[in-house]
Amino acid sequence: MPRPDQRHIPKEPIETPFTLFLWGAEKFARRKAILAAFTSNPIFSKKDIVLPSLARKDAWTRSALQARELIRLKLTHNWSHTQFLDAVRETDNFLPVQPQFRIFLSNLERQASDEQKAEWIPKAERFEIFGSYAQTELGHGSNVRGIETTATFDREADEFVIDSPTLSSTKYWIGATGVWATHSLVVARLIIDGKEYGNHLFFTQIRDLDTQRLMPGVEIYELGPKAFQGMLGTDNGAMQFHHVRVPRSQMLARNAQVLQDGTYVKPKNELHSYGSMVTVRAIMAECTGWDLLKPVAVAYHYTSYRKQFKKAPSQAAETTVIDYASVQHRLIPLLAQATALVLVGQRIKQAYDDYSSANIRTGDFSQLEDFHLQTVGAKVYSTEITAHGIETCRIMCGGHGYHALAGFGRMYGNAVNALTYEGDNYVIGKQVPRAILKHWRNKTESSLPTLSYLSKLRNRNSLSPPKLTAQSDWLRPEVQRWALEERLVSLVSQHIADTEAGHDTSYSSHALTMAHGDMVYWNGFEALLRDLEKRRPKPAFTEAVRALFDVFSLSVLQKPHHATLATALPLSSVQRGLLRQAERSAIEALASEHLEEIMTAYGFTEYEMDSALARAEKEPYEALFEEGGKGSEMSGNRMEHLFGMMVDTRRMWRRIEEEKAGRPKL
Amino acid sequence: MPRPDQRHIPKEPIETPFTLFLWGAEKFARRKAILAAFTSNPIFSKKDIVLPSLARKDAWTRSALQARELIRLKLTHNWSHTQFLDAVRETDNFLPVQPQFRIFLSNLERQASDEQKAEWIPKAERFEIFGSYAQTELGHGSNVRGIETTATFDREADEFVIDSPTLSSTKYWIGATGVWATHSLVVARLIIDGKEYGNHLFFTQIRDLDTQRLMPGVEIYELGPKAFQGMLGTDNGAMQFHHVRVPRSQMLARNAQVLQDGTYVKPKNELHSYGSMVTVRAIMAECTGWDLLKPVAVAYHYTSYRKQFKKAPSQAAETTVIDYASVQHRLIPLLAQATALVLVGQRIKQAYDDYSSANIRTGDFSQLEDFHLQTVGAKVYSTEITAHGIETCRIMCGGHGYHALAGFGRMYGNAVNALTYEGDNYVIGKQVPRAILKHWRNKTESSLPTLSYLSKLRNRNSLSPPKLTAQSDWLRPEVQRWALEERLVSLVSQHIADTEAGHDTSYSSHALTMAHGDMVYWNGFEALLRDLEKRRPKPAFTEAVRALFDVFSLSVLQKPHHATLATALPLSSVQRGLLRQAERSAIEALASEHLEEIMTAYGFTEYEMDSALARAEKEPYEALFEEGGKGSEMSGNRMEHLFGMMVDTRRMWRRIEEEKAGRPKL
Repeated sequence: MPRPDQRHIPKEPIETPFTLFLWGAEKFARRKAILAAFTSNPIFSKKDIVLPSLARKDAWTRSALQARELIRLKLTHNWSHTQFLDAVRETDNFLPVQPQFRIFLSNLERQASDEQKAEWIPKAERFEIFGSYAQTELGHGSNVRGIETTATFDREADEFVIDSPTLSSTKYWIGATGVWATHSLVVARLIIDGKEYGNHLFFTQIRDLDTQRLMPGVEIYELGPKAFQGMLGTDNGAMQFHHVRVPRSQMLARNAQVLQDGTYVKPKNELHSYGSMVTVRAIMAECTGWDLLKPVAVAYHYTSYRKQFKKAPSQAAETTVIDYASVQHRLIPLLAQATALVLVGQRIKQAYDDYSSANIRTGDFSQLEDFHLQTVGAKVYSTEITAHGIETCRIMCGGHGYHALAGFGRMYGNAVNALTYEGDNYVIGKQVPRAILKHWRNKTESSLPTLSYLSKLRNRNSLSPPKLTAQSDWLRPEVQRWALEERLVSLVSQHIADTEAGHDTSYSSHALTMAHGDMVYWNGFEALLRDLEKRRPKPAFTEAVRALFDVFSLSVLQKPHHATLATALPLSSVQRGLLRQAERSAIEALASEHLEEIMTAYGFTEYEMDSALARAEKEPYEALFEEGGKGSEMSGNRMEHLFGMMVDTRRMWRRIEEEKAGRPKL
Repeated sequence: MPRPDQRHIPKEPIETPFTLFLWGAEKFARRKAILAAFTSNPIFSKKDIVLPSLARKDAWTRSALQARELIRLKLTHNWSHTQFLDAVRETDNFLPVQPQFRIFLSNLERQASDEQKAEWIPKAERFEIFGSYAQTELGHGSNVRGIETTATFDREADEFVIDSPTLSSTKYWIGATGVWATHSLVVARLIIDGKEYGNHLFFTQIRDLDTQRLMPGVEIYELGPKAFQGMLGTDNGAMQFHHVRVPRSQMLARNAQVLQDGTYVKPKNELHSYGSMVTVRAIMAECTGWDLLKPVAVAYHYTSYRKQFKKAPSQAAETTVIDYASVQHRLIPLLAQATALVLVGQRIKQAYDDYSSANIRTGDFSQLEDFHLQTVGAKVYSTEITAHGIETCRIMCGGHGYHALAGFGRMYGNAVNALTYEGDNYVIGKQVPRAILKHWRNKTESSLPTLSYLSKLRNRNSLSPPKLTAQSDWLRPEVQRWALEERLVSLVSQHIADTEAGHDTSYSSHALTMAHGDMVYWNGFEALLRDLEKRRPKPAFTEAVRALFDVFSLSVLQKPHHATLATALPLSSVQRGLLRQAERSAIEALASEHLEEIMTAYGFTEYEMDSALARAEKEPYEALFEEGGKGSEMSGNRMEHLFGMMVDTRRMWRRIEEEKAGRPKL
């Protein structure tokens, strides 16, 4: 049983008004159903297995069997696609079924004609076919225009011939394609009569449905292990096509078509090609905050348990480490930032979903560029904070955070690829400054609310700074907004100068993208807090949300994501001192008044945290000793087949000495 | 064969004057011998195995067999301890023999009596016994005074009784103890007649030499997997003692003794207990720079190969990614910082070794406190830069950096525990500000050269700032020193104010420790460059070293390790703009004029880099396709035992529909 000084860890989700606010009512209901199904099903057990000790193919096999069981659950209980995707994320490893809805079916919905949809979507929904999405190549990632795979129209046969002309055109990193998928949406350059028409999508069968063997002309290898044992449940594939033929009817034809005579009917709007990446990045914007909250929760539980040294020599007992500033100043800002990612990310995703479902019907792409920009910014911003944040959580737990069963390694390995997939952050992040520059030059900043600060740049001296003479001034929204905008204005004007001077801004603009993200998330969080404070009766948890908002705002100013952001904000040393004090006070206030309330409201179960440092009925030291020690496959005499070798090694010196002395070998 | 646009990757070390300068002549000679032995020996092959795919116990088994072979090599060729330790670091995983010299034998040398040494050291040197060092407990790491294991003197039996009274007293993380070691130096609280005498070391047999089975009363478990698949070759152990008896003669007796009648003879100097950690941290200070240089080298080779997008639309071919500022501004500062870590770290280690070997003879501990401070600072500084740096290298390689065979995951997993082991950086780092404060208060800063800036704090306005009106001024040593000192002075004065106000400085002082590190390494690097420039004839590589020094100096000012460091340096916006330009120019100059020369001088072989992105005779894409694809244990039909399950899963929907319709199951 937990000791009195250990925070309560629930075995199942507990519903409170604050919980529903943080999770959203629908997500909370899905989560409850998923956890009920998973924790009662031995196939999804996380406890009776030391996953990082397994051979990779055994870990994948377990994930494949979980995928099968999840399909059964979905079909039996009519789970929605969203519930299914949420369920994949409750596993410890991802599953080969993840691409089925996340990217295979979502692309069919956006890019297939009604006729094609009628044929393929039911099959995909009931898992009669296993899908993947093949875009990235060995030689080209973010630069999709560089894709080399070709689809050449053969008029006689009424077919396309898909081909990989070079090694660098090998499709690479294709999720669920190494072993699992039977069909792939292949991105290839359409060629008709020697003329190029750019990238299009081809619905391509890659494995036989009855045997799982490769189709003729399709050469696939599983990609091998990923860094940090990441994504053990995903069989990424390397795939080459050797003159593979697909019927003309299998080019996705919602936007562009090829007629029987080879006539190319071009799409009404080129923007549709953004859709696939926008969708995935919108999902990422919503998810990554949760990827950070779990390690924050584990670190919270462990640092509330661990004691080390004494703050004052007169203390009887050692100090619980969460009471040190060194823990609080790392943990609490991450909690506040993760909350901003989750709450604002949900709204970005929701707005895009609303727009997207209407847009598929109407064919109106007018807002897609804005959503593209929003989701690119959110993807870069949220994945940077999350990646660094998970490691910060591990490190603040000291040495025991390095134990695989603490879970931080798994969380990091599964989350951190997000910095480079769906676009390298340094590359795709450039789209934010590019858009800023475009609107600045066209004087169209008023068309995008998040760019309103550009008007300040036009009238640099017209606005007087707000009163800023006391620590409490830093809690006023107009002061925070002023500071965030001042910083942006200074970075933008630097960016304009650099661009005009012909400098390569690919490095420096990343800081601008992050500062823009601070502004976007601050705006979203602030609006949400204002709404909450207007509610009557005012919810009991309003003060806790305000405390999170205060820490979020002040931490992104006081400990910005890049050092260059710190100097971009021109403050007097007095103002800077006040900011420093205000941030410290906000962190201390949250820690002493709201931390337990907030963590209880998030209420991660032991199944969700999946960490020896956060078990419901075991102290961390017990769990580390029993699961990490007694549970090791190398403990006791389990390695005794090597004992003789070790004994013999200790006798080697005598043989070598005798050899050197010229005596015969034993 | 490499294409012309691919940088040359050597198969064996090449000796040039610049190489000898960077590596040091002795280290280079050791390296050459080790690589010759390893690359011709199949036991040490890194290529014919996909290590991250193995079950953990199989990976450890391979390391244990490598350990055996390395013992044979050492004994046969009379390798020095240093050469042996260097050899362990050339493997991909560490080995269970690492603690033998690194911490087992070095402690015997420092803490055993002459008589004890005569008995134990030869056995340890010839591996007749396998050693480990058992200090950390589940409940106590950095706070060694909190250690709970007891060694109670039994006068009748003339023995100590070693006992683990609580779960939290379990020795934990003990390297090479889960399976391998036969003897351990156990840190335990000495108790005689109910009176406590603090921690002492006990030479304790834990396994039978002839059977490898545990000794009576010793309970050991192997610890299980580490985060990121780190240190696969080390069997860390959890160890409990149940009234284990060791003869009185096995308490290490160089400094303190227990006489037969129970009289405690206390050590002449308490400082000796620092020794063990100082030694290991000195080794770390020297090693971690190399841990960073290898991923820098891999990233250099890959980004010199990879092409993506065009800088200008008019270009014929895509731009090689190393030509983008986004790569250069990450890679080049890391190269310069890693060089500083290596060159200055070598000198710290050398100075400590010289002192230490004399000190064992003379018993003079007068300088130990200084070395303690120096090595603590170096450990914190070098491990922080290295850990973040390795990940930065992975990320700048884009998606392919996430492939396990790119090697960054392994490098990170094996290096990053250094942030928390041998003392959590946030905890041990506090010793630097503590020492600063002590010398400030005692007005003794002149006793330590690296604290000379404190005198500026006493006469804040007495020194006028140097001329700083042109970009080139930032290249003058006196300007750089002024800036580093100004920053430190401002942080120290903040730290004094916080301390006097009673604030918990455990978070904020970390930035001060890093700023202090910048100063220490800048001083060391600058002195070294001055020596080099005085040599006649001036070596041809002097300009390259100066370019590295320029980038090092300007990057730690312009992109400091913590955002708070940026604001601690009070510069006018013009001065800041000049710094920004000076850093950019220094990076561009190094990239265009010296980068290839420097990387060639480091000259890591393909064996050392061990990355699919840096093979001598294969392009990265070829290696990713062949090793990462064809080489996967899940490729082709190797998973065909699961094919039937997948085929059946695709037919599940029909059964479930039939069930729902009330029809009998098939």
